[in-house]
Amino acid sequence: MFELIKRAKERLRGHSNVTPVMTSRTLNELVEAQVFLKCENFQRVGAFKFRGAFNTICQLTDEQKKRGVITYSSGNHAQAVALVGRLLGVRTTVVMPENAPMVKRAATEVYGATVIDYDPEKTTREEMAKILKADHGYTLIPPFDHLDIIAGQGTAAMELLERIKSLDTLLVPCGGGGLLSGSAIAAKTMEPTCRVIGIEPELADDATRSFHTKTLQTVKNPPTIADGTRTPSLGKLTFPLVLEYVDDMRTVTESGIIEAVQFLFYRMKMVVEPSGALGLAALLSGAVSAKGSVGVIISGGNIDGDLMSKILKG
Amino acid sequence: MFELIKRAKERLRGHSNVTPVMTSRTLNELVEAQVFLKCENFQRVGAFKFRGAFNTICQLTDEQKKRGVITYSSGNHAQAVALVGRLLGVRTTVVMPENAPMVKRAATEVYGATVIDYDPEKTTREEMAKILKADHGYTLIPPFDHLDIIAGQGTAAMELLERIKSLDTLLVPCGGGGLLSGSAIAAKTMEPTCRVIGIEPELADDATRSFHTKTLQTVKNPPTIADGTRTPSLGKLTFPLVLEYVDDMRTVTESGIIEAVQFLFYRMKMVVEPSGALGLAALLSGAVSAKGSVGVIISGGNIDGDLMSKILKG
Repeated sequence: MFELIKRAKERLRGHSNVTPVMTSRTLNELVEAQVFLKCENFQRVGAFKFRGAFNTICQLTDEQKKRGVITYSSGNHAQAVALVGRLLGVRTTVVMPENAPMVKRAATEVYGATVIDYDPEKTTREEMAKILKADHGYTLIPPFDHLDIIAGQGTAAMELLERIKSLDTLLVPCGGGGLLSGSAIAAKTMEPTCRVIGIEPELADDATRSFHTKTLQTVKNPPTIADGTRTPSLGKLTFPLVLEYVDDMRTVTESGIIEAVQFLFYRMKMVVEPSGALGLAALLSGAVSAKGSVGVIISGGNIDGDLMSKILKG
Repeated sequence: MFELIKRAKERLRGHSNVTPVMTSRTLNELVEAQVFLKCENFQRVGAFKFRGAFNTICQLTDEQKKRGVITYSSGNHAQAVALVGRLLGVRTTVVMPENAPMVKRAATEVYGATVIDYDPEKTTREEMAKILKADHGYTLIPPFDHLDIIAGQGTAAMELLERIKSLDTLLVPCGGGGLLSGSAIAAKTMEPTCRVIGIEPELADDATRSFHTKTLQTVKNPPTIADGTRTPSLGKLTFPLVLEYVDDMRTVTESGIIEAVQFLFYRMKMVVEPSGALGLAALLSGAVSAKGSVGVIISGGNIDGDLMSKILKG
C-alpha cells in the first residue's frame, strides 16, 4: 500500500498544493506539546479530497474519461471530482443530498459538474449513483472506499512526515476512513513508532465502535455539526486498513468541535470547517493527551458563512 | 533607513514569525497577475505591529524598561506592546478609545497590560498618553511615528522580497504610514523598479490627499469598517518618507473591502480584518491594475466574531 501512496505523490506533483504546516506558541503552551497542523484547508477546493480524486481520475482510460464520471458526496469530495474533471476534461455528475451545505453545492456547480439531488430520508446516494452509472456508462469515483482514493489521501500525511521528522502522534479526522487509513499507512511505514489516532464526533462514533468491537458498526444521518463525517460506516477496504494500521480511535463532543473551530479562527486566523477541526478538538478537550511532537491533519475549510457565524457566537 | 530595517530584522530573529507567503490560482486568474500575499495575520498578536513594538522596546535602557511603557492605539499596536512588554518584563499601559473592538481590548488585557479608556469625542489619545507619561515617567511607544517602529514594520516587506525576487508591484495598507513607509524603504532599496502603492479606504483618504497635494491632510474618526486606518493623519516622520519612497496612493470603497475579506475567507480560508484586506481590495476592485508579480501585505487578522458575521452576510 505504501508504494501506492508514493506513486500518488508523483502523480499529484504540480497539481495539488504542498500545503503549509502551521504552528502556534499559544497552542503549544496550552497542550504542552509541539503541535504541527497540516493545513489541507489550503488545499485546492479547500480540502484534502482533491488528492484522492486527482489520483483516481487521472488513471482512467481514455474511453472512461470520454464517458464521464459520477460520484456521491456530502460535499468536499464532490467539489474535488468536479474540479479534477474540469482540469482533465472529464464530464462529472454528482449525486448530493438535498440538505447539503449551500457553499459546497455552489462550489461543485461552479466547477462545471451536473448536480443531481436526492432525499436522504427516502433513498441512499449509493443507490442513486448506481442507477445513473448503469444508464450512462459513467465510472463511479467513490468518496473513500477505493485504493486510489485512499492512496491519494495518504499523501498529505506523507508530506507532513517528510517535513517534520519523528512525530510521536498523528491525529486524523475520520468519516469513511479514506483519509485515516491513507494517513496511517503513510505514518506507520515512514515512522513506525508514531501513534496514529482517528478522531470522530461522539454523535457519529461508528468507526470508534467498529474499531473497538472489530465488527462493522453504523450510524444513520447523525446530527453532528461535522458534516464531513456523516457517512454511515467505514468501507469494505477502509475498515480492515483502519484495524491494521490505526493505533486508537477517540471521540469529541460537539462543543469541543466548536471550541476548536473558534480557536483556529481567533488565535490562528484560519477558516476550518467542523470536520477539519476534529484532531485539534481532541487535543484541546483532552480526549487525547499527547506529549512530544503531534501532527494534526486539518482536513478542510469549506464552511457556510451562516454556520461560521453561529459558531463564532458560541 | 534601510540599515535600520536590516538591524531590526536581526533583533526580531527568533521572536517574530517569518510569516508565510500565500498564493491562489483562482486569484491569479481573476486579476491576471501572479499575486503573493505576505500574511501578517499569522504574525504574533495577529498583526505586523509586533515587529515595530519589539524592535522599539527591546532597545530601551534598563532604567526605561523598569519604569514601564505607555501607548495609545485603536488595537493591534496595543496588543503588540502588551505582548512585547510581557516577553521582556516591561510594565505596559495602553490608552484606548471606549469604542475599540472587544476582541482587541480583551487581547490587550490578556497580555497583562493596563487599559485606560478615553472618549474619542472629548479628547485625543495623544493628550491622554502625554498626561500619563508625565505623571509616571513611562516611555511612550507611539503606534507609527518613530524610526524604530517604522524600521520594524519594514521587515515584513524585506522578508517578502527575500523570498519572491523581482516584484513588479507592492501593495501596502496605509493608516498612520508606519507599515507603508517601512515597506517602501525596504522595497525600493532591494528592488528599485518595484512600484510601491499605498492603499486607503475612500472614507479615510487623508494620506492619499496628502500624497497628491504634498500638504498634510487629516480625517476625523472616519466611519470606515477598516478600523486600523482611522488614524487622523500621517506623522511627522511618515509623511516625508511616504512622499520620498512611495510611488502612488489609491483608495478602495467599503464594499470593495468587504468583498476582499469575503474572498480571503471563502476562497483562501484565511481570517483577515478589513484593514488587512486593503491591498487585495485594490486588486479585486480594479483600483490598481497590476501586471506581472504583485506583492500584497495582508497586515492583520484581528476581527470580532460579530463583525465577521456581518461581513459574511454581505
